[in-house]
Formats: sequence, C-alpha cells, structure tokens
Amino acid sequence: MSNNDHEPIVPKVGPASRRKFLRVATVGVIGTVVGRHALADSLNDVPVRAVGAPLSGHSERSEFVQLSRIPEAGPGLRNVNPSVAINSKTPLNKLVGTITPSDLHYERSHSGVPNLNPIKHRLLIHGMTKKALVLTVDDLKTMPAVSRIAFIECSGNGWENWKQADESLTVQNTHGLISTNEWTGVPLGFLIDIVGMQPEATWMLAEGGDAAGMARSIPMTDEIMNEAIVAYAQNGEPLRPAHGFPIRLLIPGWEGNLSVKWLRRLKFGNQPFMTRWETARYTSLMPNGKARQFQLRQEINSVITSPSGMMEIKPGYNRITGLAWSGHGKIKDVEISTDAGKTWSSAQLNYPVLPKAQARFQMDWEWDGKPTKIVSRSTDEKGNVQPDRKTLINHMGTNALFHYNAQQTWSINAEGRVRNVLA
Amino acid sequence: MSNNDHEPIVPKVGPASRRKFLRVATVGVIGTVVGRHALADSLNDVPVRAVGAPLSGHSERSEFVQLSRIPEAGPGLRNVNPSVAINSKTPLNKLVGTITPSDLHYERSHSGVPNLNPIKHRLLIHGMTKKALVLTVDDLKTMPAVSRIAFIECSGNGWENWKQADESLTVQNTHGLISTNEWTGVPLGFLIDIVGMQPEATWMLAEGGDAAGMARSIPMTDEIMNEAIVAYAQNGEPLRPAHGFPIRLLIPGWEGNLSVKWLRRLKFGNQPFMTRWETARYTSLMPNGKARQFQLRQEINSVITSPSGMMEIKPGYNRITGLAWSGHGKIKDVEISTDAGKTWSSAQLNYPVLPKAQARFQMDWEWDGKPTKIVSRSTDEKGNVQPDRKTLINHMGTNALFHYNAQQTWSINAEGRVRNVLA
Repeated sequence: MSNNDHEPIVPKVGPASRRKFLRVATVGVIGTVVGRHALADSLNDVPVRAVGAPLSGHSERSEFVQLSRIPEAGPGLRNVNPSVAINSKTPLNKLVGTITPSDLHYERSHSGVPNLNPIKHRLLIHGMTKKALVLTVDDLKTMPAVSRIAFIECSGNGWENWKQADESLTVQNTHGLISTNEWTGVPLGFLIDIVGMQPEATWMLAEGGDAAGMARSIPMTDEIMNEAIVAYAQNGEPLRPAHGFPIRLLIPGWEGNLSVKWLRRLKFGNQPFMTRWETARYTSLMPNGKARQFQLRQEINSVITSPSGMMEIKPGYNRITGLAWSGHGKIKDVEISTDAGKTWSSAQLNYPVLPKAQARFQMDWEWDGKPTKIVSRSTDEKGNVQPDRKTLINHMGTNALFHYNAQQTWSINAEGRVRNVLA
Repeated sequence: MSNNDHEPIVPKVGPASRRKFLRVATVGVIGTVVGRHALADSLNDVPVRAVGAPLSGHSERSEFVQLSRIPEAGPGLRNVNPSVAINSKTPLNKLVGTITPSDLHYERSHSGVPNLNPIKHRLLIHGMTKKALVLTVDDLKTMPAVSRIAFIECSGNGWENWKQADESLTVQNTHGLISTNEWTGVPLGFLIDIVGMQPEATWMLAEGGDAAGMARSIPMTDEIMNEAIVAYAQNGEPLRPAHGFPIRLLIPGWEGNLSVKWLRRLKFGNQPFMTRWETARYTSLMPNGKARQFQLRQEINSVITSPSGMMEIKPGYNRITGLAWSGHGKIKDVEISTDAGKTWSSAQLNYPVLPKAQARFQMDWEWDGKPTKIVSRSTDEKGNVQPDRKTLINHMGTNALFHYNAQQTWSINAEGRVRNVLA
C-alpha cells in the first residue's frame, strides 16, 4: 500500500464501479440526460455575468458552507457553555480526504487556551543530561527540521460508546477526537544529541506552558527517539494557539495527551514522573478493579464517515467511505461489511498510505432498501486487527474511558436513516 | 525518493548536522546553557497561571502571527487596490512543510471571485459524447472519489525575473504563484466513461462559471484521462470560493489556468477550441517574433525559501531550505550551491516525495561572513534538470511572460542581507 513506483498515483476507479453506478445513473436518479435542444435551458441558472468579489489576502469559506467543531464537557455533555468545555471535536462527517483543516483540528485542553508570546516563550531541557539548555522559539526554527503527515488522537476518542449507544450521535460525536495534519519541527533526537542524555536516563517528562502545567512521562524508546518532533508548524503555518502555539511535542501514534502543547520543559530521568495526569486521568479501570496505566499507544481503528450517524440514504448506488488509522504504523487493509458483520470485502485505499496517518477508504455499495448494519474493520502492517465490540468488552469491561477502538456499527432502517448502535 | 518500506519515515538529521550546529551552539549564539541554580530564573517569564481562552468551534491564528497573500495587478504591480488585482501570492517565505493552508493558496482570477450557490450550480458534459449529461454538485459527491496531494502553479510564476531583477522582492513576490493542497473529487475518466466519449474526440473544452467564462482546451492524453479530477474539496474541506467553489478541474502538473475554477462545462471535440485565453494570453512571445502556444506543462523548478529575498542572516550555522517541483513527476534530487554556482551539493529531501507535488529540501550551511550567492537546481525522475538563467534566456529570449523556471539566485552581502538578483 506504500506509494512506490509500482503503484498508480491515484487508485483506479474501475469498470465495476462504473457498472454499479450506471445502473442508477441511466434511470435518471443521478444526473439528467438532456437532448441537444434542452442544453441551454438546463444551464439557465448557471452563468454569472457580474464581476465577482475582489481578490484578497485570505480566502474565506463560502457562505454556503457550515463547518464547525462541537465543544463538549465530557462524554455525553454536548452543546455546553464553551467556558466549561474540555474538548471540541472535528466534523468528520463533513470532511473528505485525509488532511484536517488547521482550524478544525480537534481540541483538548485542561485549562483553556493560553495566549503565549513567542518572543518570551522558552523551552528548558534538563534533568539527566550532560548540560541544561534553554532555547528560544527562534533557536528551534534555526535547527534542521522535518515535516510529517501524522494523526493526533485523544485517548478518549470513542468514549461515547463504552457503555451504551446514543442513537442521536454523528460520527463527529463518536470519533471526532482525531485529526491529521502535516507537522513540522525539530527532531527530538537532534535536541537530545545537543544536550547529551545520561546513559541511565530512560524516561522524559514533557510539561506544557498552560495554567494546568499539563505534564506526562514518556519512555525513551528507539521509536520515540527516532520519530518524536518538537513541532512549531501545522499544515505549513505556525501552530494555532489551540494546538500548542508556539511549540508542542509530537509523538506520532501515541496518546494525543503525550503530544504536549505549549511545551515549556523536557526533563530526563530514570523512571516515570508519576504526574497527576497519569493517575487521576489517562488510566483505564479494568473489570478486576485495578487501573491500567501507561497504555500509551493508540490502537488500530477505523470508522465509516459516510453514510454515518444521522445521515439518510436512498436505495441503489451508495459510496461507503471512511478513515482508518493505527499507532503501530501503516494501514494495510480495511474491510467493510454491509450485512452486520456476516460477510466482509476489502475497501479501496487512497494513496499514499502513510504510517501513523489516517488513510481514506471507499467501497461501492448497492443498497437494496432493506434494514441492515454497516461496519468497518482495519488491519495494519504489523498484523493488528481492529476488534469487534464483544472482544474489546470481554477484555476491558465497561468501566474504562480511554482507548475504545471497537468496530463502529451504523444501523440503517427501511427509511434509510443511519444511526449509532452497538454491534 | 518514494515512500516505500526501505525508507525511514522522516529523514535522518545526522552527526554532520549536529557537529556543524554545535560549533555555534556551544559558544552561546544558539540557546543558553544554564547552571542548575539559574534554571528557575531563566524560565521566569514563561509560566501562565490564568485559565486560558474557552474552547471553540474554530481555532484562529495567534495574534503574534501575520500571514497574508499579496494581491497584485501584474508583473511589478504590487500593493494595488484589490479591485484591480488579478492574482494574490502565497507567502512562501513564512510557510514551512509542503501543504499550503487553504486560505493562503495563491489566487488568480479573470473577473473576480463569484459567489456560487452549490444547489443551483450545474456541470454540463457534452460535445463529441454518446450522450449529454447535466450533473449537480450532489451527483458528483455521490460518485467514487480520489484524493491527491498536488501543486497548482500559475504559468506566470517567476515572471518578475524575465527581464530584470528588482532587489526588493521576497520569494513571495518571485515565486508565490504556486501552492500545494490535498484535492478530492471525481476522476475525470469516470465521468468520461459515463457519458461515453466518441472515438474521434481528442480535445476537451473546460469552461468556468465566472463572469469571464474563462475556458481552455485540454488534449485528451492518457495522462489527463488517468490523472485529471473534477475536485470539490481542498485539504479535506469544500473548495473555497477563491479556489473554485463548488467545483473545479484539477490537471496535476499542468498550467494552473487549465485547472479551471467554478467549472460549469466540459465539451469534447476533435481539435483545440482556440479560446481567447489561448491567444490573447497564455502564449509566449519567442525571440523570432512568433508566439509559442499550448506549452501546457509546468516545468522542473525549485527555489530556496530561507534564506531568501529581504531576509538577513548571521555568520555561522544556517539552515538552507526550500521547495522543488516538476510537472513531469517526482523530484529526484535538489542541489544547492553556496558559491554562485561553482560547486554543488545534494540537499536532503523530506518524505514522502510525491509526484507533481512540492518537495521540501534542506541543507546545513556554515556561512563565513563573506559576500556570496546561493542557488538551487532540481532534477526530476524523468531526468529533467532545472536550467540556469542563461540557458533559458538563450532559448526563450526576454519577451516571454510565462513558464520562467530558471534557477533562482539570492545574493548575500557582507552584512548578511539577502537580495533577489539574476544569476
């Protein structure tokens, strides 16, 4: 699935798609086949004959497009006063492709969004290092940099469905705590080379410059040393305040909470730092009453974004599309069932499929108008397969809040209404 | 350079970079090495102790970040009244990575930006087809789709330097008529399959729904049939009005002008349609007085975006970075000279390198403080090499306006001031 020379640049949309589509198109449901004389009439509304708006410094959205995140105060607490919101979710139901617009990247904060002055901001690197170093943001921008398209996902993504399924939820509600941007910054490994890590250092504390001083312990594995980035840009432009301006950590594939925003300090040590964020939060209560700690990697996951919760479909040709991702690496396969999990077919993946980034999938489907359930399941290059709900709950019970990655089922009734249900 | 399994996920920033960098860092120019007791002092300004702004529906930019396009009325006609502007350029000097934020994608229009209602908009496909078809925007969104990261470049990009070099220009002025987005839409080939192209059809007219009715002729090569997209989204969200809302054509690697915005009509024929846009404009006046027509492909190109025009650098470690692209396919190599073209070294390319998309390159450089000139030259997978200015002018003369792809030279004086010059 990687973008090498043996692959087409874009997936082929083949004769099977066309045939399925044409069965509908030729009876006039899609498009209007017009005779030569009716051409002018059919376009009557279209031509614009007045000069348009002047060119500008920024391209705003069309007045006909409504796109917005939904601020929430926690599971089930939607449409709250923004002052008590703790996250806001990406409208996956209204987006296509894989890149998330910067202003719609999901948001999670523990004490609001600080307005940091990049001239005054500093990053301290210290602890079990050969020297302590204080860097300005300009220092970081001077250093060698890398860019990478990667997802960030809150470990709370999916928490709406742990115990029960609210049928009024959209995919923005159920899965909107994940987004994919192109991130640019300095490799963490380069900074570590500069300060010199002591041999016994095995963990790193990353602390944010928000009022909460949100801080997490990160094990210094080879993967982290190779892939972590101190990022100053998203989608080519400086980070936006809600996403960590002027600098944040990026730990591709791990809990979003570890990609600490408004980064002010990296401290090296020989054990986890046991901050309140890894005890009071970001642990999972297991069936036996013990709490699972340091479940740091985001697991294999996927969701159908269209058709999805609260949409309506019609019998005949329907395009099923969605997103798949894994904290382990690249997505290798996404299978879709349109009969509630009885039979499965592989969907088409869009190129390039990048490691620890969201992958877009699609499949043609002719709906016969009978009630059914549709569901997706993904497999990554390491062989991890997205579990069904039963398997996940058997292992985790229903007391946990984080790392819900069960297959998402959408039920469709005879009227074509799509609803969130448990499998 | 493709992103296959044999490549690292991000480029390695190796010991050579670190050594070069440390030579500077250890003398205190970059960063501040602090003693244990001074740590608290050095961070005095940083901690925020007040709760930040509430979470929101959209993440706005920081008040400390200024990013804007520059509307222009033509070569050398900057800072004009927006009502007479014909284009606005992307601030390449302030962006990093490869993705261009949607609101900063460059703009070119021939009669302003129309405000089209997507419910009323129609796409007519007719001419030498088996049937004529009128499609709504919703019809298109129902069809199989592909997403692709690709650049769009105005063939006028670089026109400032055809005859002379204005030393006050930034890289936004010289090269800001190119941007890279992720585009999503229906493959043109799928639409053609539906209407059925007659065997003698070899050209396609694409007409925009702006007041100018901008229209271009496009030859129906295998490349176009395989790669062209009728796009409805950029960077995951609906196209913005300045970029063709609700639908535009995307012809990856070809003149931006062919990626017709506000697309309303595709007509098939057996010869070019000879619109005014391919006679009065978008031709190149050659030295012999004849006009070169239908030079449709954007050639191999590159530019150093930092350090670049009107920036200032200091002696010691400097990171050189920029963008390279080719309408022929993938970038294979970018070489940089820091001695006015006498010697060249290959820069590091960021992964993944995608066909007909911008590639980000970087190189470490220790500037000795003496006046010099820096320049980049790119090579693509088809073996095309970006020409120096002399070679281009020998062939094209200085009367042409379009398709200037000569190597860009930045001169640096003893004070470190960077200026636009001809080679």
